[in-house]
Amino acid sequence: MFDESSIHAANETVQGDLARDYDALGEKLAREGIDIETIRKRATDFAVAVPSWGTGTGGTRFARFPGGGEPATIFDRLDDCAVINDLTRATPTVSLHIPWDKADPADLLAKAEETGLGFDCMNSNTFSDTGGDHSYKYGSLSHTDAATRAQAIAHNLECIEIGAKLGSKALTVWIGDGSNFPGQTHMGRQFERYLGSMKEIYKGLPEDWRIFSEHKIYEPAFYSTVVQDWGTSLLTAQELGEKAFCLVDLGHHAPNVNIEMIVSRLIHAGKLGGFHFNDSKYGDDDLDSGTIEPYRLFLVWNELVDAEATPGLNLAHMIDQSHNVTDPIESLMVSAMEIQRAYVQASLVDRAALAGYQADNDALMASATLRRAFRTDVEPILARARLDAGGAIDPIRAYRAAGYRAQVTARRPKVAGGGGGIV
Amino acid sequence: MFDESSIHAANETVQGDLARDYDALGEKLAREGIDIETIRKRATDFAVAVPSWGTGTGGTRFARFPGGGEPATIFDRLDDCAVINDLTRATPTVSLHIPWDKADPADLLAKAEETGLGFDCMNSNTFSDTGGDHSYKYGSLSHTDAATRAQAIAHNLECIEIGAKLGSKALTVWIGDGSNFPGQTHMGRQFERYLGSMKEIYKGLPEDWRIFSEHKIYEPAFYSTVVQDWGTSLLTAQELGEKAFCLVDLGHHAPNVNIEMIVSRLIHAGKLGGFHFNDSKYGDDDLDSGTIEPYRLFLVWNELVDAEATPGLNLAHMIDQSHNVTDPIESLMVSAMEIQRAYVQASLVDRAALAGYQADNDALMASATLRRAFRTDVEPILARARLDAGGAIDPIRAYRAAGYRAQVTARRPKVAGGGGGIV
Amino acid sequence: MFDESSIHAANETVQGDLARDYDALGEKLAREGIDIETIRKRATDFAVAVPSWGTGTGGTRFARFPGGGEPATIFDRLDDCAVINDLTRATPTVSLHIPWDKADPADLLAKAEETGLGFDCMNSNTFSDTGGDHSYKYGSLSHTDAATRAQAIAHNLECIEIGAKLGSKALTVWIGDGSNFPGQTHMGRQFERYLGSMKEIYKGLPEDWRIFSEHKIYEPAFYSTVVQDWGTSLLTAQELGEKAFCLVDLGHHAPNVNIEMIVSRLIHAGKLGGFHFNDSKYGDDDLDSGTIEPYRLFLVWNELVDAEATPGLNLAHMIDQSHNVTDPIESLMVSAMEIQRAYVQASLVDRAALAGYQADNDALMASATLRRAFRTDVEPILARARLDAGGAIDPIRAYRAAGYRAQVTARRPKVAGGGGGIV
Amino acid sequence: MFDESSIHAANETVQGDLARDYDALGEKLAREGIDIETIRKRATDFAVAVPSWGTGTGGTRFARFPGGGEPATIFDRLDDCAVINDLTRATPTVSLHIPWDKADPADLLAKAEETGLGFDCMNSNTFSDTGGDHSYKYGSLSHTDAATRAQAIAHNLECIEIGAKLGSKALTVWIGDGSNFPGQTHMGRQFERYLGSMKEIYKGLPEDWRIFSEHKIYEPAFYSTVVQDWGTSLLTAQELGEKAFCLVDLGHHAPNVNIEMIVSRLIHAGKLGGFHFNDSKYGDDDLDSGTIEPYRLFLVWNELVDAEATPGLNLAHMIDQSHNVTDPIESLMVSAMEIQRAYVQASLVDRAALAGYQADNDALMASATLRRAFRTDVEPILARARLDAGGAIDPIRAYRAAGYRAQVTARRPKVAGGGGGIV
Repeated sequence: MFDESSIHAANETVQGDLARDYDALGEKLAREGIDIETIRKRATDFAVAVPSWGTGTGGTRFARFPGGGEPATIFDRLDDCAVINDLTRATPTVSLHIPWDKADPADLLAKAEETGLGFDCMNSNTFSDTGGDHSYKYGSLSHTDAATRAQAIAHNLECIEIGAKLGSKALTVWIGDGSNFPGQTHMGRQFERYLGSMKEIYKGLPEDWRIFSEHKIYEPAFYSTVVQDWGTSLLTAQELGEKAFCLVDLGHHAPNVNIEMIVSRLIHAGKLGGFHFNDSKYGDDDLDSGTIEPYRLFLVWNELVDAEATPGLNLAHMIDQSHNVTDPIESLMVSAMEIQRAYVQASLVDRAALAGYQADNDALMASATLRRAFRTDVEPILARARLDAGGAIDPIRAYRAAGYRAQVTARRPKVAGGGGGIV
Repeated sequence: MFDESSIHAANETVQGDLARDYDALGEKLAREGIDIETIRKRATDFAVAVPSWGTGTGGTRFARFPGGGEPATIFDRLDDCAVINDLTRATPTVSLHIPWDKADPADLLAKAEETGLGFDCMNSNTFSDTGGDHSYKYGSLSHTDAATRAQAIAHNLECIEIGAKLGSKALTVWIGDGSNFPGQTHMGRQFERYLGSMKEIYKGLPEDWRIFSEHKIYEPAFYSTVVQDWGTSLLTAQELGEKAFCLVDLGHHAPNVNIEMIVSRLIHAGKLGGFHFNDSKYGDDDLDSGTIEPYRLFLVWNELVDAEATPGLNLAHMIDQSHNVTDPIESLMVSAMEIQRAYVQASLVDRAALAGYQADNDALMASATLRRAFRTDVEPILARARLDAGGAIDPIRAYRAAGYRAQVTARRPKVAGGGGGIV
Repeated sequence: MFDESSIHAANETVQGDLARDYDALGEKLAREGIDIETIRKRATDFAVAVPSWGTGTGGTRFARFPGGGEPATIFDRLDDCAVINDLTRATPTVSLHIPWDKADPADLLAKAEETGLGFDCMNSNTFSDTGGDHSYKYGSLSHTDAATRAQAIAHNLECIEIGAKLGSKALTVWIGDGSNFPGQTHMGRQFERYLGSMKEIYKGLPEDWRIFSEHKIYEPAFYSTVVQDWGTSLLTAQELGEKAFCLVDLGHHAPNVNIEMIVSRLIHAGKLGGFHFNDSKYGDDDLDSGTIEPYRLFLVWNELVDAEATPGLNLAHMIDQSHNVTDPIESLMVSAMEIQRAYVQASLVDRAALAGYQADNDALMASATLRRAFRTDVEPILARARLDAGGAIDPIRAYRAAGYRAQVTARRPKVAGGGGGIV
Repeated sequence: MFDESSIHAANETVQGDLARDYDALGEKLAREGIDIETIRKRATDFAVAVPSWGTGTGGTRFARFPGGGEPATIFDRLDDCAVINDLTRATPTVSLHIPWDKADPADLLAKAEETGLGFDCMNSNTFSDTGGDHSYKYGSLSHTDAATRAQAIAHNLECIEIGAKLGSKALTVWIGDGSNFPGQTHMGRQFERYLGSMKEIYKGLPEDWRIFSEHKIYEPAFYSTVVQDWGTSLLTAQELGEKAFCLVDLGHHAPNVNIEMIVSRLIHAGKLGGFHFNDSKYGDDDLDSGTIEPYRLFLVWNELVDAEATPGLNLAHMIDQSHNVTDPIESLMVSAMEIQRAYVQASLVDRAALAGYQADNDALMASATLRRAFRTDVEPILARARLDAGGAIDPIRAYRAAGYRAQVTARRPKVAGGGGGIV
């Protein structure tokens, strides 16, 4: 756990300014009929899961350039996740990736206890070969070979088994299956094989679990991908049953696609299950949330906040990013806060006024109503929520001041960099 | 009807060459185990509908530059459509657009009799104001105002009523409803209003009719569109019932999207209803079929030919293009033949060999199997099919030789050009 | 001119709140070492030109839906432009489009005097036929026919002549020339003809004038466009000479393109001449500035503010939008303010700190430095700048309260709507 | 070298059919006024370089799945390249990548002599860390740190030095430098540093060498890339001098971009230097040439064939692909033949007729003229050119029959698969 006194020390110097800014914002919001305390309560209650593997430096097919203190084990990763939550108070759970995070469940639970963390959705991996008898070079759950499919199914069932011991309640399935050439696969039969495998996994779900189907337009397959878009993901969830839902990763769409509309459609269909947050400019860039198109992130949250009262809506939120040029802990902290920021801004939208403008087709004022919420600088609310929960007003400053990265760099084994997947 | 003797005259000069090319191709295909006569039979049986409005010169929001002999009425348009079918023998039906093509059904049937044409799907228009009490500026079937929705519903029901008298069996619904600003509409409620209106129209479908929902990512709405992709179109068809299907327009997708995969998915879902053929490079460019990415057109047909035996599959094929810089009759003839070409090429695919390569994950040979079919120059088969049916070996040459455009230019009133929608 | 007393009345009710917000912001900025008065001065000095034609309701190729009080003449348009500037105090000049705005220069100057407006860049129109002997159906400045090119050149020279009388100092040339089919034009020779025509126009530039080349990836041409990107625009400006520059329209790029980088490159090349501001999600959507991706607008301004001290940099800023579903006056006011907002936010960037982070490859803090400026709610600064200059704290509220639209609707002739360019 | 007798054996069975198809095609082309022997001569003279590294199985950031017989050294790679050329007779040269292919030049020359291969352009690598003192994590030729830039410059100079000993005449520079966050780098100064480094490398070019600047829109950098498009590449080549040219990789552009137009513009500017051939559907997919959009490949060649007579035009052609799911030797053979196919098809275009249609703005016939050439099945010409040069009529069949892959799998050490760059 991050040293409490260092957090206090870091907070002390800026606490007065925060109070002033908070009051000024409160006064301004009050004039608009918004109670800042209500909003602060929402900020406090907000949580997004951190992916264990996100604590390591990511890379591309060209290269990976590790930093100092790369976590070597899931226990290192949980230590790093604890830092993120200690400082931001917004990331109380961790999402595991099997087999990367495989360990004795008892040890994992003990570490969770020690770090104050819980476990979010489980993630399976059939997009690389990690030691099974059958290779996933030509697919996994949709492979033409039944034995390969069986291996992939068994792996997913094992993920559920592990997760059940850890208190997780969901399995997220993303596969890279697809093709690189027109004709390489029969797209219809490949999808049927995928559905067949998913049904086997579905059968293994505990009563109170859910399964998430995650779509992605391309990569690692470059001509076709089995679950390429939300339409296919929806078909999948429909065919599987009531415990099956769709998971939306913000970076997995074709250029120009209106993602917030997909969110709205999946809510309509009763099949929205959760999110993988990140940002992107070109493809599945896995950039830090809110750093490229913050307004798009806000618009997604606008849909979610609007739909809060929808019966049965139960969303799993996770960050899913690749941190290639930053300290992953820092990126995860900033990203958690940017996601939280968009959520809080979306909470400021005057929905009664908006509904009125929409009814009147007053496009200009409807649009202005969203922008007014978006441009409100809610940093004082976020900072105050952190402060009150024992976190840092400025997590990056506190983190750097405490020298955590230097400590783990000294302690953990050095990792070699090198080429990526390309050669 | 196009003068038969002029067709004969045009054919005579090239008939000998055609025979030679046809024989050489037949010999080559025989070596590959393909009977050219079987393929020719398929070419002969092929048909694609022509849109009545496609016979007029199209334009953009910047301008429209009409040509000579623009058709002024649906009867002119049917005359032009007859020329297209007389020469290509591939376009026996015409798709009408209401209110543009509104006329006494008896007169339309008489004209159809005279020109040897039939009527394909009906198309409604609620994307421009054509005289109703309520404006579609802010939407039609999904408008916030119930009276406006009722007007749009009534218009669609009228289209069915007219079509029923003409022997049409389907209504295609494409609406431009959407928004230009985030916040302008509540995307979820807008979709619900759309579904409500569609259900009213669905109730008015005769027993043997179908309704097609057509998706489009954007334009004329530039932030969101109600039926923006095949996922929403699928949800619509699912909620409406068994007479509702999805129609795919090749130019209505986000950049990079794999359209043939959408075709495959809709076949899986039992909801593929038909196509609007055209080609595009950027947006909904409505360019001539097969002129930009002919291999993509082939890959779409590859899915369709592969799925021919699917129980219940019944597809409506129509050309939907905007001819801005060519003689529309010429573009429609060439487009019909390019669509037919891709269909015939797809019919050459060695599906047994392909299935074997797919089972073996022999991506290289699977891909080569498709390309081998695609690169076969099937022009002799197409030309022979036309010739045998009374059409022209080279429709463009025959059309130009006959001077049809000059005749209608002399006969029909001159149309003024001018600005487009922008100002 | 907009009634001063109504502006005063509207301001009075919110002036107290503004003072409070302004002071709170000033205090906060002071802590960051920023003098709010300096920033306010920048806001006050900011100006962006309004396009005369933007005051009318725009449309698409499918339809145009006019509103009430559409301006019928350039004098009506100048009245509307005066309202925009009276209320926002950010749009002192108007950009004319010939032949749409053709009138006796003396009358135009008198009207400018009356409304307190000046004239910005001139815009020529060779993308639609407006009465010349030669049609632009197949191109204008790059047409294969010398007489058509000569007509287009003469039109541009006339635009310069008119502009010179009005005090304008630049001509913006955007042409729709291109092709809809591979092979339709020889792309190399077409470009050479374009350059030849531009050189003729260049010769006609007065000593103190500049010419701007504006690129656009597609539309109205859908396969190729002569000046399709900044590379071709740069080649053009290089070949023409030192009075030739490139103009960047934010909506004229391929999907995913990094526009702020193009800005940076054109500054490097010494060839950036100006901007057409708008926003877009798909193509050249011409949506209101800052309504889709406000952070992108900020990043463009970040480059411009960074480069302010570049010797010789002299930028022409204009709004170029199509207002299809809003009151154009309202959209232009909001857009002018959003552009101003991004400019002011970019002025808050701590450039010394940023340079330090960049030197250290501290990507996280560099990125945070930009976001910190962006998320500052500078509305009090903008409002105060307007107030001090005689404008409205809340221009939309003041405009609506004054009933201007109702007045012109009563006064001006009703305009019929109808189809767009498509049919 | 590939066993001649096995080539003969494979050819023997299909030689008769080839003769028949060749004659039929010759007769058909003669009718169109084309001499098949002239075209065959062009096919025979065609050559495209093979990248040494392309002989190994590629991968993505998610995983790499090696096949059997992966080449372990440059000498293995040259053996594989020899097979490709022996069978296709279209790839007489190999392009080396330093440091991957570093070896004693004398040994390389001896191996080249033995395999009958020559050396094409040299390629430097500063997108991954390969042992230098300074890391390229934050850039190479454009790094903020002078020592890192110096290391990258020295590496490029070493590539020239090695290449000079091998008979190479050009250096291709592609760097991954850019940024992942807005603000991470000052885009203008970063470009200036890049230009400064390139000027140092340029100074080291031997008299008869050229340097190629290769642009790419994104990856591995995901927000900005220093040489992001042909505009920046052109600026670079212009500032460096007359030995500097631009290299176009077909997969390195934004969605929808018209690549053949870029080719045309670079020819106009006198700065087109060469190509990296591949195909793509989404990003830099590095798929096999001609497998996704064969018509696009044809259109590029159409520009090149059209420009053949341009004084000073001297193009370097190389394949640059990532073979993730096929035998790389097979993919390189097929790709070389597909590139050759497009070149030969483009050689069939009736340029006099085309120029006439273009002059008349007969878009339909101009477009048809290109398609007529494209749809000609030139396989007999390609096969005959191979046969006459000692290659295989059907290289894939001959290669598989000879069992080369099994031989090298038995002989070469097994390579472990595993994760890509992501973790």
